[in-house]
Amino acid sequence: MSPPPFKYQQPKHKLTLIPGPIEFSNDVLASMATPSQAHTSPEFIATFQYVLKRLRKLFKSSDPNSQGYVLSGSGTLGWDVAAANLLVPGDKVLVLSTGFFSDSFAEALKVYGIEVDVITAKVGDVVPLDQVKDALQKTKYAAITITHVDTSTSVVSDVEGVSKIVKEVSPNTLIIVDGVCSIGVENLEFDKWGIDFALTASQKAIGVPAGLSIFYISERALAKALNREKETTFFASLKRWTPIMKSYEAAKPAYFATPAVQTITALSTSLDEIFSESLDERFAKQAQVSDKFKKTCKDLGLTILPVDDKVAAHGLTAVYFPEGVDGPALLKKLSEKGFVVAGGIHKALPGKYFRVGHMGYSSYAGHLDAFAKALEESLKELKQ
Amino acid sequence: MSPPPFKYQQPKHKLTLIPGPIEFSNDVLASMATPSQAHTSPEFIATFQYVLKRLRKLFKSSDPNSQGYVLSGSGTLGWDVAAANLLVPGDKVLVLSTGFFSDSFAEALKVYGIEVDVITAKVGDVVPLDQVKDALQKTKYAAITITHVDTSTSVVSDVEGVSKIVKEVSPNTLIIVDGVCSIGVENLEFDKWGIDFALTASQKAIGVPAGLSIFYISERALAKALNREKETTFFASLKRWTPIMKSYEAAKPAYFATPAVQTITALSTSLDEIFSESLDERFAKQAQVSDKFKKTCKDLGLTILPVDDKVAAHGLTAVYFPEGVDGPALLKKLSEKGFVVAGGIHKALPGKYFRVGHMGYSSYAGHLDAFAKALEESLKELKQ
Repeated sequence: MSPPPFKYQQPKHKLTLIPGPIEFSNDVLASMATPSQAHTSPEFIATFQYVLKRLRKLFKSSDPNSQGYVLSGSGTLGWDVAAANLLVPGDKVLVLSTGFFSDSFAEALKVYGIEVDVITAKVGDVVPLDQVKDALQKTKYAAITITHVDTSTSVVSDVEGVSKIVKEVSPNTLIIVDGVCSIGVENLEFDKWGIDFALTASQKAIGVPAGLSIFYISERALAKALNREKETTFFASLKRWTPIMKSYEAAKPAYFATPAVQTITALSTSLDEIFSESLDERFAKQAQVSDKFKKTCKDLGLTILPVDDKVAAHGLTAVYFPEGVDGPALLKKLSEKGFVVAGGIHKALPGKYFRVGHMGYSSYAGHLDAFAKALEESLKELKQ
Repeated sequence: MSPPPFKYQQPKHKLTLIPGPIEFSNDVLASMATPSQAHTSPEFIATFQYVLKRLRKLFKSSDPNSQGYVLSGSGTLGWDVAAANLLVPGDKVLVLSTGFFSDSFAEALKVYGIEVDVITAKVGDVVPLDQVKDALQKTKYAAITITHVDTSTSVVSDVEGVSKIVKEVSPNTLIIVDGVCSIGVENLEFDKWGIDFALTASQKAIGVPAGLSIFYISERALAKALNREKETTFFASLKRWTPIMKSYEAAKPAYFATPAVQTITALSTSLDEIFSESLDERFAKQAQVSDKFKKTCKDLGLTILPVDDKVAAHGLTAVYFPEGVDGPALLKKLSEKGFVVAGGIHKALPGKYFRVGHMGYSSYAGHLDAFAKALEESLKELKQ
C-alpha cells in the first residue's frame, strides 16, 4: 500500500510487553502521522479498500458474501456488535469461559437481554469438549461464544474442536469467536471451521495503536443482522455499517460516521508487514519465540499458568511469581530494566502471577531475548 | 504536557479544507507516532489525567460534579451515549433541526425507542425561538437536542437563547447539544447556560485525527445515567465508563476497554495548543478568519448559504455554486490547485453548493488566504 509518510526511528523507550497494546513497528507509527486526508478522498478510499480486502485474507476467508469491518472503537465494541445485531432479547447463548474476558463477554450479552449459560473451565485449562457437547444436546442455543485466547489465563481454546461439535450437534447455533488476542497470532480458519463472527482489536497481534474494532462476519450471520426487525443500537448497527464497508471495498466513498483515517492507514501498513510472509509462517515464527520464552521461564524454575503446553497461547505467557519473590518488587525491577509487563487479573489468583505479551512486532524485534535476560537478572537480584 | 516524540514537518500535501477531518498541526501528528505505552503506565495516566482536566476548561465548566469523557469512537457514538444513558424508551424528545445532522440525531434517538418531535428550520436558518417556546409549553419533553453547528447548512444555533427558554418554560428538560462542529470554535458555556450533555469528535475544531468521541455531562444528567434501572448498551454505558474517567482524572489506572493511547496523546498536544491562548481569543481569531473569507466570497459575487450573517457558523462556510459554473468542475479545479473542499449534503439542495472547512489549525496557518486566491483563479478560469 502507500508507504509511510517519512522514515521514522522511534525514540528509545521502555518496551511494552503486555498482552496489548503491544510494541509497534517504526513504519506503523510513522503512518499514524499521515497528514490529513478527507475520509472520501481517493487516497483514503484506496487505503480502506486495501485494508478490507486484506481482512479477508487475515481471517482466512474466501467467501465473497462474508464481510470485514473496521470501526472506531475498542475490542469491547465487538461484543456489542454481536449482541445487538446477531441476537435478540430472550435468545440463549452458551459461553465457554476460560477467564476474565469470557465472563465479561457474558456480561455484555446480558445487557442486551440475552440469556447466558456459562461453562467455566478450570483455571488455566479449556472447557472439555464433552461438556460442550452435553450442553448443546440439552439446550437449543442461538449462539456459542468462544474466547480464542483469554489473556487473563493465557489459555488458547480449541476453536476448531468446538466448531466441529457445534456443526454436528446444533448446526444452527452461530459460532462467535472473541479473537482479540488471537487474530494474527493463532490460526483461525473462518470459512473452513464455519465461524460466524470473529472480532479483534487493533492494538493486539494486528500491531496497530488502539482505537479500532475489527470484525468479520459470515453470510448467514450477516443475513440475520440485515433482516432483523428492530435495531437496538445506532453506532454499532450492521444495517448502517454494511453498505459503508461494501462501498469502500468497492473503492467508492460512503458515509455513516467518520472513520479513523490515520489509524486505518497504520492498519494498512501493518497488514503489509503481516503479509510480507504467509500467515502460517507468521504463526510459526510467533510460536517459536513463544516456545523458546516459555522454556526459558521453566529453566529459571518458574511455573506457567496454563495446565498444559497444549493449551498455552503463543501471543503471551502467564507466569506464577516464584515462592519467596515479591510480585510488585519483580515488576518494579523489570520496569527499571526497561520492560513493562502486566500483572495478573484472574480473580481466583490475586497477585499470584504476571503476564508477558509477545505478539507481533516484539517477536520479530528480538525483544523477548532481551526480556528473558532482564527477568533472570531481576530474579537473581531479588533472591540475594 | 509531554512534548511530541520528535520534531516533525509534515510532507507537502493537498490541504483538507472540509468540515472535518481538518488539517492537523505538525506536533499533533508527531504525537500520533508516540511509541507504545501501556494504558496503565504512569506516562499515559498522566496524559489522560491532563486531557480530562483540560476538557473541563474546554467546555467552560467548573462544576466538580460534571464529568468529561473520551471514548474510542466517532461523533456519532455520542448520540448513542445520550440516547442509551439519559433517556428511556417512550421518552419524548424535541429535536431542533437545522439540517442533515440534526435529522440523523433524531434517527439515532428513534432506534432507542424514543419519541421524537422535530421542528425543522428553513434551509439556512435556525429554528425561531418562539416555536421552541410553543412546543415546550404544549408538551413535556424529557430532553431537547440542539445541533450547535449543522455542517450541512453551516448554520450556528443560538444555544444560549434556546437554553434560556428551556430553563423558563420546562426546567426539567435535559439540554443536549451536538457540538461536533462547534466545541473549540463557537462559544459554549456549559455551566452558565445549564447544558446537560455536549458531544464532539476529535477531528473537528479539536484538531486531532478521527477516532475519539468526546463528551461532557452535567451532574443531574449523570445522576440519571447512573441511577437508571436498565442498561441498554455495554460499550456506550456511562455506568461502565464513569468510574474509569474519574479514576484517570485522579491519576489512578482503571480498565473497562483499552483507550486509544496515541490519539489521546495527540489530544493532549492539541489541547496544549488550544490553551496557548484563552478560549475566547481562539474563538475571536477563528471568527476573524471566517468573516474575512466570507467577505472574500461575497466580493467574488458568491452567495453564502445561511440566510443571515448572524446565523453563519465560524468553522466552515457553505457557498452556492455561482450561476453558469459547473460544480464538479470547480471542485476539480480547486483540487488540482491543492485544496480539498466538500460538496453539499442537504437533501433540499442537491449539487447546488460546496463547503469549506476552516476550524482550528487552518485558521492559524493562513490556509484560507491561499484558498481564497485559488478560488478566485478557478472561477476566472471556468468563466473564460
